[in-house]
Amino acid sequence: MAKKPVVLRDVWEARKRISPVVKKSPLIYSPALSEFAGTSIHLKLENLNVSGSFKIRGATNKILSLTADERKHGVTTFSTGNFGMSVAYIAKKLGIKATICISNRVPKAKVETLQRSGAQIEVYGESQDDAEQRSYQLEKEQGLTVIHPFDDPYIIAGQGTIGLELLEDLPEIDTVIGGLSGGGLHSGLGVALKSTDPEIQVLGISTARGATMYESIQAGKPVIVKEQDTLADSLLGGIGIHNNYTFNMVQQYVDEIVLLNEDAIAEGMAFMLDKHRMVIEGAAASGIGAVLNNKIRLGSHNVIVISGCSVDTSVILDIAEQFKSKIQK
Amino acid sequence: MAKKPVVLRDVWEARKRISPVVKKSPLIYSPALSEFAGTSIHLKLENLNVSGSFKIRGATNKILSLTADERKHGVTTFSTGNFGMSVAYIAKKLGIKATICISNRVPKAKVETLQRSGAQIEVYGESQDDAEQRSYQLEKEQGLTVIHPFDDPYIIAGQGTIGLELLEDLPEIDTVIGGLSGGGLHSGLGVALKSTDPEIQVLGISTARGATMYESIQAGKPVIVKEQDTLADSLLGGIGIHNNYTFNMVQQYVDEIVLLNEDAIAEGMAFMLDKHRMVIEGAAASGIGAVLNNKIRLGSHNVIVISGCSVDTSVILDIAEQFKSKIQK
Repeated sequence: MAKKPVVLRDVWEARKRISPVVKKSPLIYSPALSEFAGTSIHLKLENLNVSGSFKIRGATNKILSLTADERKHGVTTFSTGNFGMSVAYIAKKLGIKATICISNRVPKAKVETLQRSGAQIEVYGESQDDAEQRSYQLEKEQGLTVIHPFDDPYIIAGQGTIGLELLEDLPEIDTVIGGLSGGGLHSGLGVALKSTDPEIQVLGISTARGATMYESIQAGKPVIVKEQDTLADSLLGGIGIHNNYTFNMVQQYVDEIVLLNEDAIAEGMAFMLDKHRMVIEGAAASGIGAVLNNKIRLGSHNVIVISGCSVDTSVILDIAEQFKSKIQK
Repeated sequence: MAKKPVVLRDVWEARKRISPVVKKSPLIYSPALSEFAGTSIHLKLENLNVSGSFKIRGATNKILSLTADERKHGVTTFSTGNFGMSVAYIAKKLGIKATICISNRVPKAKVETLQRSGAQIEVYGESQDDAEQRSYQLEKEQGLTVIHPFDDPYIIAGQGTIGLELLEDLPEIDTVIGGLSGGGLHSGLGVALKSTDPEIQVLGISTARGATMYESIQAGKPVIVKEQDTLADSLLGGIGIHNNYTFNMVQQYVDEIVLLNEDAIAEGMAFMLDKHRMVIEGAAASGIGAVLNNKIRLGSHNVIVISGCSVDTSVILDIAEQFKSKIQK
């Protein structure tokens, strides 16, 4: 039997490695969502991480694992934004040169934040795939190390540290829900949680406007999906035709993938603003939107991973206006 | 020499007592505010407490210190809201009957949240003083124990646990800033921080629309101040003509009290929404508003206590509209 690419010990090693940089994120109970659903729902506040998303975990685990020579030459990555911000943050902290390749679909707020982060930004092409090509060019031409946003054992193990924190704070957890894109988060959660108890449900929410992982699982192999603009822009992006890890791991670990429309995503964002006084991005609100629209087979002790907060303030204000009648106070 | 009413050991005892109920709150660095001010500024996120404010600390410390007989008879308090919510939360958790007396100035959002909390609510009079009278009536007539919102050694020691957490996370702290009302928070911070290093600056921000503690310190004794409506409604309320603890402790510990106008408070709220993606109440935003308006003599390692999040969503949306031109994304 082939060795699994990522095992539980890798996640514990990641936890130790990232601990000087990445603090444990809060897990809070949601009275309002629990009351709505008639079962216990907690929220894992990854939006409160220094880089504004959970991606700091994988990025830190990967970059702290590079050799001295690799660090000297610098790193590059391609990203719809949050992963890029996390690489920029940790690279700056360690004094490593980072070049972030992004497509022209990335929202203005993210581009400006990246520019302020001290990383070199290269805007290239229309899609995450175009940005990815540019990163591999830089690797060939300038010797930079490509940091893949999700399809890498160190990234997966880093994201898996969320699972260890969940077991620590809520050992009775039976269901975890998170926005599913490239699958790094779900692969890591799968290793951490299902290695501990295979009965724990791992659920993915994708946007109906570009559910590449969902379509790939349906097809039995990685496919390319045409994408449209969505509030959950962090959930867009291909999984790579030559996917090495996350396609198989999501196949193995994720119990169900739910596709969500824009209204449900917006409803999740409005709910979080009104009930938990926080601005979160569409991808992060997808789990809440799915619960509010009864799309999820919930357990008795559920956790929704609130993945990040990168969204233009004007967008959240428009959504608040749209859902005014549902905002109670 | 008379024994001080609250000493550092009391704060450590409070920390142990409340630890099963009150989790440590996050301390985050604010890149945007630090850049604006040219010095390091952290935010202590008390708005993320289960009850939505730091008041859960004092309330829990006090109620867990009651005798079995006192618990059986139940408790009562009077409050501009956050303290009432905290008493309601902890009383419900422990199965103790709680009656909250509030004035008709308390915003709708707070009243509804209190009603949902399971506490008995009594709306009485125009001011916190009227509500207070009602609580003492209930004590005489029905044997309830009055839980004073600030002028009590257990409440002060409970709020002081914030100071211990700050020393743990940022031992280099030299300045702490928080909204000042009855003085429970600042008395507790003073004990915890100044007992550790008398050089640590403890600063208070009050609303210009009813700065009872400020006027009392000026007068050299507790006075009554006419109040007007303010965004920082949690900072209103008398300190009690027969104040036993906090007047002297604020006199002793608080280095400076700054009065803030409504525009500066609103600006703090808009900044927190835009830069840190959180909805906070006016009292909690007062420290940020003071920094943004250069009202504070900052140190090298500053912390602003973000005290709570009880505010109508409609109010924050109106403020976001008002500050649209300053919102960058």
